[in-house]
Amino acid sequence: MPAKIITLLTDFGTADGYAAAMKGVILGICPEARLVDVTHLVPPQDVRAGGFILAGVHSFYPEGTVHVAVVDPGVGTERRAVAVRTSRSFLVGPDNGLFSWILKQEGFLEARLLENRDLWRREVSRTFHGRDIFAPVAAHLACGIPFESVGPLCSPLVADWASVTRTETEMRGEIIHVDRFGNAVSNITREDMSAFAPDGPCIFRIGPHTIQGISDTYGHVPPGQPLALIGSTGHVEIAVNLGNASAVLAIRTGEPLTVTRPGD
Amino acid sequence: MPAKIITLLTDFGTADGYAAAMKGVILGICPEARLVDVTHLVPPQDVRAGGFILAGVHSFYPEGTVHVAVVDPGVGTERRAVAVRTSRSFLVGPDNGLFSWILKQEGFLEARLLENRDLWRREVSRTFHGRDIFAPVAAHLACGIPFESVGPLCSPLVADWASVTRTETEMRGEIIHVDRFGNAVSNITREDMSAFAPDGPCIFRIGPHTIQGISDTYGHVPPGQPLALIGSTGHVEIAVNLGNASAVLAIRTGEPLTVTRPGD
Amino acid sequence: MPAKIITLLTDFGTADGYAAAMKGVILGICPEARLVDVTHLVPPQDVRAGGFILAGVHSFYPEGTVHVAVVDPGVGTERRAVAVRTSRSFLVGPDNGLFSWILKQEGFLEARLLENRDLWRREVSRTFHGRDIFAPVAAHLACGIPFESVGPLCSPLVADWASVTRTETEMRGEIIHVDRFGNAVSNITREDMSAFAPDGPCIFRIGPHTIQGISDTYGHVPPGQPLALIGSTGHVEIAVNLGNASAVLAIRTGEPLTVTRPGD
Repeated sequence: MPAKIITLLTDFGTADGYAAAMKGVILGICPEARLVDVTHLVPPQDVRAGGFILAGVHSFYPEGTVHVAVVDPGVGTERRAVAVRTSRSFLVGPDNGLFSWILKQEGFLEARLLENRDLWRREVSRTFHGRDIFAPVAAHLACGIPFESVGPLCSPLVADWASVTRTETEMRGEIIHVDRFGNAVSNITREDMSAFAPDGPCIFRIGPHTIQGISDTYGHVPPGQPLALIGSTGHVEIAVNLGNASAVLAIRTGEPLTVTRPGD
Repeated sequence: MPAKIITLLTDFGTADGYAAAMKGVILGICPEARLVDVTHLVPPQDVRAGGFILAGVHSFYPEGTVHVAVVDPGVGTERRAVAVRTSRSFLVGPDNGLFSWILKQEGFLEARLLENRDLWRREVSRTFHGRDIFAPVAAHLACGIPFESVGPLCSPLVADWASVTRTETEMRGEIIHVDRFGNAVSNITREDMSAFAPDGPCIFRIGPHTIQGISDTYGHVPPGQPLALIGSTGHVEIAVNLGNASAVLAIRTGEPLTVTRPGD
Repeated sequence: MPAKIITLLTDFGTADGYAAAMKGVILGICPEARLVDVTHLVPPQDVRAGGFILAGVHSFYPEGTVHVAVVDPGVGTERRAVAVRTSRSFLVGPDNGLFSWILKQEGFLEARLLENRDLWRREVSRTFHGRDIFAPVAAHLACGIPFESVGPLCSPLVADWASVTRTETEMRGEIIHVDRFGNAVSNITREDMSAFAPDGPCIFRIGPHTIQGISDTYGHVPPGQPLALIGSTGHVEIAVNLGNASAVLAIRTGEPLTVTRPGD
């Protein structure tokens, strides 16, 4: 029997009842669904941040989990709605690149447009497809309807956000997310580092700051000092031991992060 | 078998363990209960905002759902505690008008004072009826005790918050809630609009701003421009395409919103 | 059959997916686990506040509940990881004093170091033991593995945070937590009060403010006036009726609170 887990990720915040309305719709269709919030605090309409957070979480969920994600600046316009089946899970949301990180990392088996209105709520609001389209489709998938019933095959949008550029002597990425602790997560992955600096030694530059090498743990430098490490999602993070890197180093999303090798 | 869903709405915030204590009490009484947070971020002691949020959510839940709501400035005083049975669900909380929106929208079948102490926790704190009275009564209801066992019949308080006033040529409401995106939700409903301007065309005035007609979607005006639309809860909202209406137009809760018809 | 409830308390915040990653790991191991968030908004790395919040909540949960708590400034260093079995529940987290309040209140039956790597995730990140060690061990405990399988016996760290000092004529504690309403919770308990002022009358001093006696409810003083009461966790709180004590009285965590008896 499949797990019937449904995770929710939105930019709806937690002060209103928007996410709760989605959950009510889901439980009406699939009463056994196990609901888990990924987050509802994606920065409003920041598709890229939402996709990054989901990508960092989805691989820890059991097979068959349905991830419904709604960061949807285009709601009510002509943007398409999509469901994707990967080897591990189902993804349901707007076709605006929200699933790019996951699709890039692990590909997918099948993607379909949400066009079968029998699976939607009878009345569809122009502004709340999360409740009226995505939630009910996710609930039906969790409860086992055949994937092909959601709609016709399509090719989901994969945005080009995770692009690291490289020359012979330099790799250049950028900060894509600042977490609650002020750790600045970049789009440079463990794999990028292995390819660029297979022997290990390297130098990070961000703004006026230079950081030597990759640390294993925050405590490897004195309190208040910056360090680079591979964070729990497999991305290079800039952190400050017992401090807030974003504040201390004045780093924001979009800040370039470059890597060079000593001697180059 | 009933759904045993219990939703929670409070002004307790999410930084302390207050909501979690309620959930522990519920699971001790009704281990199969499905717990769903509506929100715990109702502005402190804002009964009206809490009631509005719950009203926007409750109709999406399956029949038999128990909604426990605690926004309770009068805790420890003589205010009464109440359970209400509607054709759809059970409502449990202080009798301070918190359920006014729901009672006005759909009426109720039966209301009872919470006076059966056998259903409460043995020790009742003066300051935390959410945990000691409302949570255990909600849990017992979810697990199927007869509704009449909670206490004697009563008439629940229905406040007069949703009042729209009308003259021949003008309808006047007010902003009752600003959501996370800065959308300003008013107490003017879709039905109010149909009755006042059945032919469609209308003019909204809020502060110094004038908005022509109702839009179908945020994208119907250029970015940064204000619009009026019927939001997902069926209320007229003032929004700004890709912007924050509350900030851009300096709108706060309580701001009057008037509607006229062209030619009047 | 045990309850299989797992509560989570962390300082990870709710804007990232950290807590959701832990939940995915748990559901992969123990699909029937009932997950409840205590809070993820413990002030970053504030072990004391996290421990206080958990202590105020855990006694309301059914027997057999597993509480996993991660406020872990020492992650990746040599600090130990621990599981504790009390007469009521299981505690899983870093051995940094996070469980001090609970251990002081109710003692424990058995404590063990988390050293059985078979219970961990195969890959263990240096920076995210919550996901890779604590979550899987908690899931295994909830699903019924024998407690002794987690690792060898140990003696868990009990910090000395809850210390109230007393002279013949004065009891001295301090503010340990300010809740969302601005209520300032102290480390002085109901039992401390009974021992020091068994006849009832007493005088509280905090900063330049003097408060006479203990009130039963917020409404016992006029709006805007300060009062002392025994809060829902059994600790003396300083509050302001319909106001924010922390703001009105300029109280912060660490502020001394003294109690004397009239006539002394």
